Amino acid sequence: MNTQIVKAFGTEAPTEDLKPLSIERREVTENDVEIEILYCGVCHSDLHTARNEWHGTVYPNVPGHEIVGRITKTGKGVSRFKAGDLAAVGCMVDSCRECEQCKKGSEQYCEEGNVQTYNGHEKYLDRQTFGGYSERIVVDQDFVLRMPENLDPAAAAPLLCAGVTTWSPLKHWKVGPGTKVGIVGIGGLGHMGVKLAKAMGAHVVVITTSPSKVADAQRLGADEVILSTDRAQMKAHASTLHLVLDCVSAEHDVNAYLRLLKVDGTLALVGAPEHPLPIAAFSLIPTRRNFAGSTIGSIKETQEMLDFCGEHQIVSDIELIKIQDINTAYERLLKGDVKYRFVIDMASLKN
Amino acid sequence: MNTQIVKAFGTEAPTEDLKPLSIERREVTENDVEIEILYCGVCHSDLHTARNEWHGTVYPNVPGHEIVGRITKTGKGVSRFKAGDLAAVGCMVDSCRECEQCKKGSEQYCEEGNVQTYNGHEKYLDRQTFGGYSERIVVDQDFVLRMPENLDPAAAAPLLCAGVTTWSPLKHWKVGPGTKVGIVGIGGLGHMGVKLAKAMGAHVVVITTSPSKVADAQRLGADEVILSTDRAQMKAHASTLHLVLDCVSAEHDVNAYLRLLKVDGTLALVGAPEHPLPIAAFSLIPTRRNFAGSTIGSIKETQEMLDFCGEHQIVSDIELIKIQDINTAYERLLKGDVKYRFVIDMASLKN
Repeated sequence: MNTQIVKAFGTEAPTEDLKPLSIERREVTENDVEIEILYCGVCHSDLHTARNEWHGTVYPNVPGHEIVGRITKTGKGVSRFKAGDLAAVGCMVDSCRECEQCKKGSEQYCEEGNVQTYNGHEKYLDRQTFGGYSERIVVDQDFVLRMPENLDPAAAAPLLCAGVTTWSPLKHWKVGPGTKVGIVGIGGLGHMGVKLAKAMGAHVVVITTSPSKVADAQRLGADEVILSTDRAQMKAHASTLHLVLDCVSAEHDVNAYLRLLKVDGTLALVGAPEHPLPIAAFSLIPTRRNFAGSTIGSIKETQEMLDFCGEHQIVSDIELIKIQDINTAYERLLKGDVKYRFVIDMASLKN
Repeated sequence: MNTQIVKAFGTEAPTEDLKPLSIERREVTENDVEIEILYCGVCHSDLHTARNEWHGTVYPNVPGHEIVGRITKTGKGVSRFKAGDLAAVGCMVDSCRECEQCKKGSEQYCEEGNVQTYNGHEKYLDRQTFGGYSERIVVDQDFVLRMPENLDPAAAAPLLCAGVTTWSPLKHWKVGPGTKVGIVGIGGLGHMGVKLAKAMGAHVVVITTSPSKVADAQRLGADEVILSTDRAQMKAHASTLHLVLDCVSAEHDVNAYLRLLKVDGTLALVGAPEHPLPIAAFSLIPTRRNFAGSTIGSIKETQEMLDFCGEHQIVSDIELIKIQDINTAYERLLKGDVKYRFVIDMASLKN
């Protein structure tokens, strides 16, 4: 198999900073697309994986799964893309394609486990996959997305994870005109949830612990903002929501948010708290409420979301950084000190 | 308002035994049906309420919401029933009839709270409702069920709570031919869940901690029985079930049962453990599983279930007792020493 050496930024151990690395990528095979990476968003999963917080990280690790770039090369079997196209790659680069979930176009739930963009298994080279903190990436065309040309490509990068991770549950639980959606946790995911749910026509209620986020939630598109620390406000909104999108990764009392749901309502968890969340039977039973989880979205959903964002001019609120600032950015991410997503200008990697 | 004095069995304080009482019931109003009670099932909720374990019990308390009897009198506005009909009453005797849930025929989820058969609010007499441990009951015709004449009325009594509480989630989550259903907790509810799911055409998998229940689960209709203490068995069945009906009221590790669900599968809790159940985010997120609750069923669902049971000859496995044995029965219930439901022969109340 022909390979190429590519500049990247990554880490060689859980406790080490990220630093310049040279990595090996395959040359395009028949169905591959090569993309020159322009921008890459910084997701909290990048930090978890770089530091082995979810265990199982294979080093060296090159994070990054919110990738936007220009196509530089295509394999002979590629018909849907050509050199020069603006394209994107999200959290997956392959899947088994044969299981029940893959066959119905839900590759994110592939029964064999989809191939993650980084720290997945690169079957051609039989080692870990490397993510978007790099010059170039080579991906099977079936896992490459078209990026609308009218969006700022830097601010659009977070759509590839934060965008689709909120889009998929909003679509799955049928959010639209006539539905009331609660969004908990206004960060990288939550702020996209507000923008998307609003554009989908829902009545959007942001629930926050922080009075300082009220004005920002309104700016993002919230129709109402509830302070979860105010019992009277929480009680007044009890049993009013069809869906709560819970984007909180820290420990929190899910029962308080479940009580906001109508009969048959769902609380969809997309944040991933480390410790189990205690759920009272009586938060669910008397009103047939559902406590569910959801992860990223299918390739089809991702493309639909990107097209929708192009049509509605939706991008992420970002802070553009150089790759050399990634370690500082990780520390700020841990403190929640970003509104709302860091995006790396990959031109900085060439310096 | 005209009233009548009726013999009953109940309790006057949380720590007292049940004993003979005289209670006042309204005479039939225009839309009421009066039923001479023949049999009344003994539900764990009866014990919880008699002993004020869920708080809010108003004394004296007369439990019983699995009621089968013969109609003795009907109001002038009653057209669907006549004296002599075999009839039944379950967990509700009224609801607001005006909210979104009532209007769509889901009175069990009435937004004002349905009127429970005992310890609810008797609006005509402005005091608590009294349940089925009594000679007669007077109920609005809209909350009276027709009982198939071909079923043993004693063994059919538990259908009114244990039956519909398992029927409703089985129907709501679309169990039938082609679906695999897990049933956890083989007791009053669980044994009905097995019988109903099997008759609905599902592949039924009983999951039990107890090797002593394997043969009985098979007799009830289980296609497979898994010992939850056997890791290899649990692992072999991972991600295979569409629905798990969780009938366990004690503390238990729900995550172990969630792992048995396929993508988009639901664990429906119908047992009510006292303490919150810890749910790991990763039990839900990677496979979009749902942890839900469900309570009893609507009047429409209850009638459908009774008709289905008539057609399929399904009744509960019962032990018939006299009302004078109710306190001993409660003690045995606490030890799980009943296969699978006590039913009171109400003729004993006349002695």
